[in-house]
Amino acid sequence: MPEVRVEEAQRFMQESLLAGGAPLTEAMAHADLLLHADVVGHYSHGMNRLELYINDMKSGVCNPHAEPIILKETAATAWVDGCDGLGATVGNFSMALAIKKAKECGVGWVAVKRCNHYGMAGYWALKAEKEGLIGMSFTNSSPILVPTRAKQGTLGTNPISMAAPATGGDSIVVDLATTTAAMGKVEMQIRKGEPLPEGWALGPDCEPTTDAQLAFDAGKLLPLGGLEKTNGYKGYCLSAMVEVLCSGLSGSRATHNVPQWSHSQTEPPNLGQCFVALNPECFAPGFGDRIADCLQHWRNLEPVDPSLPVLAPGDKERNNAKVTHARGTIKYPESQMTSAKRLADRIGIRPLEAI
Amino acid sequence: MPEVRVEEAQRFMQESLLAGGAPLTEAMAHADLLLHADVVGHYSHGMNRLELYINDMKSGVCNPHAEPIILKETAATAWVDGCDGLGATVGNFSMALAIKKAKECGVGWVAVKRCNHYGMAGYWALKAEKEGLIGMSFTNSSPILVPTRAKQGTLGTNPISMAAPATGGDSIVVDLATTTAAMGKVEMQIRKGEPLPEGWALGPDCEPTTDAQLAFDAGKLLPLGGLEKTNGYKGYCLSAMVEVLCSGLSGSRATHNVPQWSHSQTEPPNLGQCFVALNPECFAPGFGDRIADCLQHWRNLEPVDPSLPVLAPGDKERNNAKVTHARGTIKYPESQMTSAKRLADRIGIRPLEAI
Repeated sequence: MPEVRVEEAQRFMQESLLAGGAPLTEAMAHADLLLHADVVGHYSHGMNRLELYINDMKSGVCNPHAEPIILKETAATAWVDGCDGLGATVGNFSMALAIKKAKECGVGWVAVKRCNHYGMAGYWALKAEKEGLIGMSFTNSSPILVPTRAKQGTLGTNPISMAAPATGGDSIVVDLATTTAAMGKVEMQIRKGEPLPEGWALGPDCEPTTDAQLAFDAGKLLPLGGLEKTNGYKGYCLSAMVEVLCSGLSGSRATHNVPQWSHSQTEPPNLGQCFVALNPECFAPGFGDRIADCLQHWRNLEPVDPSLPVLAPGDKERNNAKVTHARGTIKYPESQMTSAKRLADRIGIRPLEAI
Repeated sequence: MPEVRVEEAQRFMQESLLAGGAPLTEAMAHADLLLHADVVGHYSHGMNRLELYINDMKSGVCNPHAEPIILKETAATAWVDGCDGLGATVGNFSMALAIKKAKECGVGWVAVKRCNHYGMAGYWALKAEKEGLIGMSFTNSSPILVPTRAKQGTLGTNPISMAAPATGGDSIVVDLATTTAAMGKVEMQIRKGEPLPEGWALGPDCEPTTDAQLAFDAGKLLPLGGLEKTNGYKGYCLSAMVEVLCSGLSGSRATHNVPQWSHSQTEPPNLGQCFVALNPECFAPGFGDRIADCLQHWRNLEPVDPSLPVLAPGDKERNNAKVTHARGTIKYPESQMTSAKRLADRIGIRPLEAI
């Protein structure tokens, strides 16, 4: 696979977003968000989506000059209008507000309407973790999760994320879609020519399928847990919980009214997002030590297969980031290089250079 | 199955708890907690556990006269010492505190150490829902969940619960263990003589098993999602998240140091619990209408099997409660009647009467 220097990937995304109409500060912030996903190995949420964001700015679906507005506020809460700004613009504004409130009174709970897609949810939780706080973030998204017993996708992958600091610079990071797998993982199985494990998706006939292409075409993902017999209704319930905290609190669109995200979007998605910060200093002393103890305990558990060590939540991404930084490059598939070339030509910027 | 009038079940549990040493107010509160589980059909968390609570009081593991103490406080947060009180004593104190804070400043986040088992997590979330708030509650528990790739159970079923009010007296209630299934469900499969679905549990050899008896003896439950290939690490991450919010914030024991709950408990479990209330009025107007719209949308989805309608989160329990109240009785298995008889003889109260 072609290798691209981390700085070059960042340069390319920044310039693309600038050419798409974003002010420099917002282009830098949004490029940082996308770069994070590629660095930690979640390629589906990184440069892979760059063109969607550019198109949204060009079509007016996203207003990169938007400045979020606080509509209502208490010491611990805020209701914010994201004004259809870029994901990073709204995320940085809202998480900074949650962090400020958490430092002042222990909790900051910010619910935001009129949001665009904001990349990896965990990126936002980590903003609070870097300030010594517990961070949490949730977003609703396009309808793709089929509730237990139903025929039709009507909830989103509605992710749950949480990050918490541990002593010694360590951390726990939880970041997961409430579907069994994201659609990006289904695409990966198609590319590899491999079937899906049971419990990932339904086919067009609403019956469970292990045919990756059928599942991709149908767009009916099962909730975490899979079918009813393996308690997939729990993933459905978790997705519904995220819906309550996002569209419920913010007054955004509910997921079942959100259009699919596409290259020909015509109206703002008006997503709902939640940014939460919690100050451990308001509770029992020694928080960081206790989290470090848990991390150490989990990592030291005896594995079933000695070649597959037990990981703590967030270790996979941390390890991927270490490898990326040591190598200094990100490996993109050929198809990504081709899309990047086409995008560069279209918006008139210097193409992405592989080494 | 023998039928017991709801009032008689309540009378029996109250008298048992009184005889076990609880003051009247606490016996009534704790009986209400257990009765709720039986009324909504989660028998594992109801009278089924009565004798464990009685034994805990008799052995001094639980102090039914305890009064929880606020150790640290801000407008939005509190750190509480549960002082080894009964689950209902600590839960009522802590959720009332969270509700008061949410009404004053939008959020109340209360973390509690030195807790005993507190029944169904959703019961506590519902306390806030009845006040027009979003309620959430989490607890850690005894180690039984095997983290992905590990051989040993080290996290708890660590439940996540949330309840939110909808217009017209309706509500959404999420209440789920972060394992695929609770051990009580494994016992049910043994009684029915049926195998487990794949993805529920490991056997004593740490390999996946569908043998219910083997799984019960081994005590190694898989996280929600099952094995690694069906992304069971997500259930593991959710359980870890609950751990951070419970033992992390409160300074209680981490799950891996909590003893199994048994009839011969010798020391307090020192569990960590979290009680959260969130005031929708601090966010976008029309919260109840939006939740009602989601509930209606989900319930009206076309089902795959017309005889199995799509349920909204909490519908199953609400429907069970309706049936229970209409009938006026709870159906207990013979084994429950036998244990109740033995308990009554032992502590010298009037036996539980079936109709």
